[in-house]
Amino acid sequence: MKQVLSILVRNQPGVLMRVAGLFSRRGFNIDSLAVGITEKPAFSRMTVGLYGNEATVEQVKKQLEKLVEVEEVRLLPSDAMVARGMALVKVEAGEKRMEALKLAEIFRASVLDVGAQTLVFEITGGDDKIKAFIDLMAPFGILEVVQTGVVALERGESAMQAVESKYDWPERCNEGKDVCQVI
Amino acid sequence: MKQVLSILVRNQPGVLMRVAGLFSRRGFNIDSLAVGITEKPAFSRMTVGLYGNEATVEQVKKQLEKLVEVEEVRLLPSDAMVARGMALVKVEAGEKRMEALKLAEIFRASVLDVGAQTLVFEITGGDDKIKAFIDLMAPFGILEVVQTGVVALERGESAMQAVESKYDWPERCNEGKDVCQVI
Repeated sequence: MKQVLSILVRNQPGVLMRVAGLFSRRGFNIDSLAVGITEKPAFSRMTVGLYGNEATVEQVKKQLEKLVEVEEVRLLPSDAMVARGMALVKVEAGEKRMEALKLAEIFRASVLDVGAQTLVFEITGGDDKIKAFIDLMAPFGILEVVQTGVVALERGESAMQAVESKYDWPERCNEGKDVCQVI
Repeated sequence: MKQVLSILVRNQPGVLMRVAGLFSRRGFNIDSLAVGITEKPAFSRMTVGLYGNEATVEQVKKQLEKLVEVEEVRLLPSDAMVARGMALVKVEAGEKRMEALKLAEIFRASVLDVGAQTLVFEITGGDDKIKAFIDLMAPFGILEVVQTGVVALERGESAMQAVESKYDWPERCNEGKDVCQVI
């Protein structure tokens, strides 16, 4: 069964490597990964999509919690979460351009770029919807697909929040500087 | 300046750790990371958003190309790419719910969940748009934010594609199996 782990981490050097290393060394297998800052730039949130039974995933969770940079880990309840991903799909539509555009409309995909021979669509939704859209576009000729991986939040009022004042944070980077937010 | 590296990798055990390790050991700093499969499930595409001058990023690119699992790396041209991200934002709107919904409409944010006291919005767009939306929602009280990180494709017909038949690929996972796609 596909599970979603949400990991709140402090932006410190090497945290991504330590989290990735934990999955890799212990043979846990990731299906997708999304890492981005939260509303507090000192923290990032990693969303990991993985297959595994509940006992296995519970074990990963416990090991993640031992890492010093990890503030909190939650295994999101599959019946009480909203989970979405995004894909950009470059299609070689050529003369069938109008047909591709019409089909994309049904999926509420946005058009990001129109070239002489190509179209780039943005599609958001659950895994199934994104897969269905890619399958639908396949006959036109797919040039490239890039996906974000799933991101998810629990429904209702429950929230993962970190307290900023507990630590001394490094400054987040400014444009032009080489060293900045470090994950 | 924010740069976007697109890395096409083979789904093999530990590839994420090796890529992450390269950034971390050499002191390169990642702003965001998105990892998802491509239209060929044997390959994943990692999109890395990072700050750095062109020389530094060119150096990372060369080092990434040395990894055996890496098929291709491209530094996407900032003036000829489409780049998008997605955020889910949980807002504590309470009595001001209608106001929050109205503002979200202007940003074309979708509503994914409505609770007694909370709203969950999905917003897609460039970094600036997402940041502006989060700032706009801040006065209502933000409970959680999760972001995908940027994903991007080059405009036009240019494409990063890998040839599947060159290798023997492990089977992709099925539901219920513990070991599956390994990144």
